[in-house]
Amino acid sequence: MPQFAGSINQYPARASLSWYAALIVIGFLTLYFIPSCAGDSEAPISLLEALFTATSAACVTGLTVRSTSGDFSMLGQGIILALIQLGGIGIMTVTTFIVVQFNKRGSIRQRQVVAETLGASGDNDLRRILWKVIAMTLGCEALGFLVLASHSLLRFDHYQELGLWATRGEALWHALFHSVSAFCNAGFSLNDDSLVPFAGDPIVTLTIGLLIVVGGLGFPVFNDLWRHRHSLRQNYWKLLQMHTKIMLLGTAALLLFGFASFLVLEWDGAISDASLMSKLNVAMSHSINCRTAGFNSVEIPQMTNAMLFISIVLMSIGGGPCSTAGGFKVTTAAIIAMRAWSTFRGFPRVNLYRRTIPPHAVERAIATAMLFAAVAGLALTTILVIEQSGAGHLSSKGLFLEALFEIISALGTVGLSTGLTNTLSDVSLLIVVVLMLLGRLGPISTFAALSYGQRSEPIEYPNEEPLVG
Amino acid sequence: MPQFAGSINQYPARASLSWYAALIVIGFLTLYFIPSCAGDSEAPISLLEALFTATSAACVTGLTVRSTSGDFSMLGQGIILALIQLGGIGIMTVTTFIVVQFNKRGSIRQRQVVAETLGASGDNDLRRILWKVIAMTLGCEALGFLVLASHSLLRFDHYQELGLWATRGEALWHALFHSVSAFCNAGFSLNDDSLVPFAGDPIVTLTIGLLIVVGGLGFPVFNDLWRHRHSLRQNYWKLLQMHTKIMLLGTAALLLFGFASFLVLEWDGAISDASLMSKLNVAMSHSINCRTAGFNSVEIPQMTNAMLFISIVLMSIGGGPCSTAGGFKVTTAAIIAMRAWSTFRGFPRVNLYRRTIPPHAVERAIATAMLFAAVAGLALTTILVIEQSGAGHLSSKGLFLEALFEIISALGTVGLSTGLTNTLSDVSLLIVVVLMLLGRLGPISTFAALSYGQRSEPIEYPNEEPLVG
Ligand SMILES: [K+]
Ligand SMILES: [K+]
Repeated sequence: MPQFAGSINQYPARASLSWYAALIVIGFLTLYFIPSCAGDSEAPISLLEALFTATSAACVTGLTVRSTSGDFSMLGQGIILALIQLGGIGIMTVTTFIVVQFNKRGSIRQRQVVAETLGASGDNDLRRILWKVIAMTLGCEALGFLVLASHSLLRFDHYQELGLWATRGEALWHALFHSVSAFCNAGFSLNDDSLVPFAGDPIVTLTIGLLIVVGGLGFPVFNDLWRHRHSLRQNYWKLLQMHTKIMLLGTAALLLFGFASFLVLEWDGAISDASLMSKLNVAMSHSINCRTAGFNSVEIPQMTNAMLFISIVLMSIGGGPCSTAGGFKVTTAAIIAMRAWSTFRGFPRVNLYRRTIPPHAVERAIATAMLFAAVAGLALTTILVIEQSGAGHLSSKGLFLEALFEIISALGTVGLSTGLTNTLSDVSLLIVVVLMLLGRLGPISTFAALSYGQRSEPIEYPNEEPLVG
Repeated sequence: MPQFAGSINQYPARASLSWYAALIVIGFLTLYFIPSCAGDSEAPISLLEALFTATSAACVTGLTVRSTSGDFSMLGQGIILALIQLGGIGIMTVTTFIVVQFNKRGSIRQRQVVAETLGASGDNDLRRILWKVIAMTLGCEALGFLVLASHSLLRFDHYQELGLWATRGEALWHALFHSVSAFCNAGFSLNDDSLVPFAGDPIVTLTIGLLIVVGGLGFPVFNDLWRHRHSLRQNYWKLLQMHTKIMLLGTAALLLFGFASFLVLEWDGAISDASLMSKLNVAMSHSINCRTAGFNSVEIPQMTNAMLFISIVLMSIGGGPCSTAGGFKVTTAAIIAMRAWSTFRGFPRVNLYRRTIPPHAVERAIATAMLFAAVAGLALTTILVIEQSGAGHLSSKGLFLEALFEIISALGTVGLSTGLTNTLSDVSLLIVVVLMLLGRLGPISTFAALSYGQRSEPIEYPNEEPLVG
């Protein structure tokens, strides 16, 4: 443990790459070489499919090339679930640890803030953080499991008729699998049509939705919320960190935006036949899921182009730092938006809740968003070229949106798909594998790279300002 | 004149809105109410078509709903050309003037820089700038006309056979129209298939290309290049403003990128049947044109999705500030990219050529790009909703890319289209009209808004840094 911690400390990108590479390789080997992992021995899993599934599970992305329930046995599903759990815990622990370690090199004030935010500052940081993360994860998952399990048993017959499960044991397995998959924002489901059968069952979608939101807010937020639990009656909001406030407000705003957009845009579209209750339920569920979890409550390709576009925007933003969510993060988007807004109002500083966001935080946000955009743009071009190979737009309509959706979904570790995954060529699938890994490791490496030392530049040259706009 | 200058000085956004509104209204009225503007009295122009054409011409966008040559008489074409010329001169003059005026309120150092960049600092600024702009415009257009006219007359028979023109007078009219349209980055053409007939004639595409590039670099660049003309042999590059260097290098990089991408992506696609020379010529022409001019040398919908995507990126960036080009500008993109790059290298400052770009220039760049993205996103969603009205993605494939292309083309005042313009509903056409106007006036208003005073904020609160990435 101390050795691993030292390794993360010195080479965070390399250490986390090792962790995910190990998970993926082990997952790949077991899924491919243990025959009893397959649910149906008639259609054995291919090398690429095993690699894709293991990566998707370890990176908690949720894209699939094989049906999780149909093509994998209990054992195979268990391996996938283990990958999800270890991947989810891994990302939270490693990112949190990196934040702590790198800030140790910062100013005393900065170290204090981070220590307060993350509740860690001692020498055995990694261990403390790891235990806290595991406790939070297992606690939430256990709660989610209890609710889902009792609900499943109560409505056992109804869903048995729909063919979701045959036995009570299977229903419990479903509850466990989905609560872990939800908290880890993985989006793997044992139902081939994900949450579509639960369109009229808000207890299931709400429970899963809550797990997703909690998992996606990130460890620092809950640490902060928990820290002030004794002041719940007075000044609670004021005591919270700015990070927590931005995450809570930003998440609420994005959820509301997704919910309202879905209702308006799909009212006569994908949910036109549903009852009012189902409409609201599906809209809520999609809004929660398209940010990073990736369960779908509606057939994605049946959605309107406008809602697909809004989903892409939500998928790019994703959840919070040090969480199981992907994307370039709510705080990043919020900081950039606030910087632009301040500029338009003529203010040189970004102030919020009587605090000033320092320029280097803005600079990191810009660098992070730019990197995300650059990788996405490059991947999109590559996949378009591979899948299209010279055919003009007229003979491949729809590919652009579907490829963009797929790439943002992979890079934001979301896992929603218009169905393109199943038609992609092997090369493109490999690119998606790389994107899933980048989407998971990128933020860690970016964060580490950006935190490296803030080299102070001795020279400030005379200022010169290019014209803009 | 002094009155108008005072009005621009005090209310730049309002003054430029008046200028463009007046142009558009006059253009609309003449095109609609003077019957002899129509080329074919059988198909009279509708109210919306007249408004669309006048806006497209005055804002030098180049999107068309009626054929410029087929549906308008010489008189009609002349009015369109006048709108283009006045629109092009207007944008250069007004933006330059605003830069000068607003910087008068800045620091002495800042005023010096701007005065040097724009060659204006006295009291009769507007008049001096206007004359310089007009001289530069007419000079370039005259040169372009001479080349195009002599070439047209030399190859008169060849193009007469192709049906481009019937008489020598018409050939000269073509030369004049295209040289003005090119320098103003308008992209209006008297040929229905724009520059497609000249795919094998690099003299035409090169002349037009040069006019476009010169017009799109912007007045400050040429002012700076001209100012140091006596030092051409020594230190010329070192004497140039940072703005000039960024514009020259950025433009070269974008042109090369577009050229190479087009060759690679369309080699077996849209230009598969062309000779090597035509291939190179068309690639160069498209690279120049999709940045903001909008003549097309190839049928847009026949291009691959990948190249359409790259074109969209190039269209968004556009040309230079205080030029006839649109987009959020090369300098804006360059500043944001350099800021991200510096951050990744761990540098708190953006240094380039022994000069430091001040933070507020970075902030303006971010605000400008964010505003562009926000308007484009909103417009895209709106048009998708209007054109699709609830139909799912499966029944409207291709619409997303085509609508995105159309919107960026309108907002970046480019004027290329996949052909969607002709199928848009009236409401969507009106939205495109608004976008063309926004794309033209937005930069002016944004610039004015951003330059307003830089209110100094008295309070710097304690810094607090949200986690990012
Ligand atoms: K996911
Ligand atoms: K144009």
